[in-house]
Amino acid sequence: MSLLVVGSVALDSIHTPFGETADALGGSAVYFSVAASLLHPVQVVGVIGNDYPVHELDRLAARGIDWSGVERVQGESFRWKGKYSYDLQSRETLETRLGVFADFVPKLPPSARSAEFVFLGNIDPVLQLGVLDQVQRPKLVACDTMNYWIQGKKPELMALLKRVDVLLVNDGEARELSGDWNIHRAGRWILANGPKRVVIKQGEYGALLMEPGRTFYVPAYPLEEVFDPTGAGDCFAGGFMGYLARRGTVTPETMRRAMVYGSAMGSFAVEGFGVRGFDGVDLARIDARVQAFQDLTHVPAAEPLP
Amino acid sequence: MSLLVVGSVALDSIHTPFGETADALGGSAVYFSVAASLLHPVQVVGVIGNDYPVHELDRLAARGIDWSGVERVQGESFRWKGKYSYDLQSRETLETRLGVFADFVPKLPPSARSAEFVFLGNIDPVLQLGVLDQVQRPKLVACDTMNYWIQGKKPELMALLKRVDVLLVNDGEARELSGDWNIHRAGRWILANGPKRVVIKQGEYGALLMEPGRTFYVPAYPLEEVFDPTGAGDCFAGGFMGYLARRGTVTPETMRRAMVYGSAMGSFAVEGFGVRGFDGVDLARIDARVQAFQDLTHVPAAEPLP
Repeated sequence: MSLLVVGSVALDSIHTPFGETADALGGSAVYFSVAASLLHPVQVVGVIGNDYPVHELDRLAARGIDWSGVERVQGESFRWKGKYSYDLQSRETLETRLGVFADFVPKLPPSARSAEFVFLGNIDPVLQLGVLDQVQRPKLVACDTMNYWIQGKKPELMALLKRVDVLLVNDGEARELSGDWNIHRAGRWILANGPKRVVIKQGEYGALLMEPGRTFYVPAYPLEEVFDPTGAGDCFAGGFMGYLARRGTVTPETMRRAMVYGSAMGSFAVEGFGVRGFDGVDLARIDARVQAFQDLTHVPAAEPLP
Repeated sequence: MSLLVVGSVALDSIHTPFGETADALGGSAVYFSVAASLLHPVQVVGVIGNDYPVHELDRLAARGIDWSGVERVQGESFRWKGKYSYDLQSRETLETRLGVFADFVPKLPPSARSAEFVFLGNIDPVLQLGVLDQVQRPKLVACDTMNYWIQGKKPELMALLKRVDVLLVNDGEARELSGDWNIHRAGRWILANGPKRVVIKQGEYGALLMEPGRTFYVPAYPLEEVFDPTGAGDCFAGGFMGYLARRGTVTPETMRRAMVYGSAMGSFAVEGFGVRGFDGVDLARIDARVQAFQDLTHVPAAEPLP
C-alpha cells in the first residue's frame, strides 16, 4: 500500500535550553517521512531551493524515502528559526523565511497519483485540495492544519474537511476551529463537519482519537528528558499513517494501534534535536516502546466488587 | 477494613459560568467521604462550627459516613468562596474564612485509631503527623498537601512524606515540591523522599501513578459538560481509597484499579455543583463508568508487524 506525504521540506534553526541547531533538516514532510519510513516506504512531494543539503536527503533515502517528488527550484529553501522556553512549554518564532515554499504548488508525479494512504501536511488548504484533485482513489486521506489557515482560509479548510477521512490537529487548533473550548465538544463539531475521525494531540499529555460515539486516549510516553519538541506532531502523523499503510487496513482496531505507533514516534522525536531522535531507532525499539505504551495504561482484570 | 479521613468540613460558595451555590457542603473530608462511601464505609475526623447545617451531614450518614469524629465547636465553620473562569481552567479565591478550622487539632476517637486505610486531607503537615501518632498500625496511609504547606512548612512536610505510603498531589504541587518542572523527574524525586507511590493528578488530562520503575496513566473521562471542578481531587482520593479499603489488599494490581475508581469518582464530581454530581450514582453506574474508562485506553491485540 503506497504512502504519500505532501508538506514542507525545510531548514530549522532551533534553540532549546539544552542546545541549538542551525539549518538542520526539518519541515512537516521530513519529520513525517523519517518516522513513517521506519514502518513503510514513503513518497514525498514538496519543494526545496538550490541551497538545500541534498546529500542529507540522499542519506535518508536509504530508509525507504522517495524524494523524487520534491521539486528543486532556483532560490532559497524554507527556513524557520525558533526558541523554546526553559520548560519547553512554549516557543517563540524568531524568523520565518518562506523562500521557494511561498510559490509551492504540489504537482504529483505519476507514481504518486495512485497512493492509497495520503497525508496532507500543514500547508494552505487550497493546495491540500489541489493534491486531492490529483490522487485517484486513496484508501485513507489524513490532514493537518494550523491556526493561520483556520483564521485566514476557513471556507477552503471547511471544504477540505469534507474530503478527508482523518483530521489531525492539536487541542488549541481544535478549539479555534470549532469555537468551543471543551475539547470533546470541539471534536464532535469536527466530526459533524466532514472527517470520520479526528485525532486531537495534547502535547505532553497525550492524544485523543474521536469517532462518533467512541473515544480512545493514548497518554504521552513518560520521558524524564525531552530535548526538542519540534516536529513531534508530524512524527506522530508519520507513525500513525506508516502503521496503517503497513497493515493496509483501516478498522477501529488498526486505528487504535496506529495511535500507539504515532505516540511512540512522537516520543522518539522529542528525545533528540530535529530528526536526530530517530538515530538508532529500529523495529525492535519501536516494538519495545509500543509494549511500554500498552503497559502504561493496562488495567488488570479483577473479580466483580465484593 | 476500616477507612478514615481527616480533613476539612466546610461551606463553599462557588461561582461558575453555569451557576452558583452559596454555603453548600464542601471541604476535603466531605468530598472524599461522599465518593468513598459509595464503595466502603468511612469515618470522618474534622471540625465544624455551630452554624453548620448538621442535618445535611445526617442525611449523608445513611450512605455509610460516620461523622461522630467531627467536633462541634462554638464559632463559625470554615468557609471558602471561589469563582471559576469561563472555561473552568482557572479559579480565583474570593474569600477564605477559617473560623473554627483555624484551631483544629485532630483528635481521633478510639474507634478510629485502628483504621487500616487512612487518608490525610490537605491540612497543616504538623497536624497530619499528629494523626499518624494516634493511629495504631494502618495498612496504607495516603496524604494530600498544597503549595501553601510546601512553601511554609517544607521540613514538616518532608518528615510526613517519610511516614506515608502514597502522596496524592496535582502536577503543579509535584513541580513545586521537587523543584523540577519535568513531571516524571518530579515524581521520581518524591519517591526518593519517602512514599512508595505517588499519584500526580493532571486535572482535565488525567492522573499518573508512579512506582519505582513503573508508571500507570488514567486519562480523564471525556466529558462534554463540566459544571464544577471543586473537590474533584478529593473525590478522586475517595474513590482510590474506598476501592482499596473494599478490596482490603494493596498490590500493584489493586493500585491500578484504584486509580480507575478514583478517576471515575472525579468524573462524577465535576458533573454537578458541589457534591451534587453524586446524586443518583450507585454501584451499577460506577461499574459502567469503570468499564468506559477501560474502553477509553483499550489497545486491541494484533499480530506482530508483517
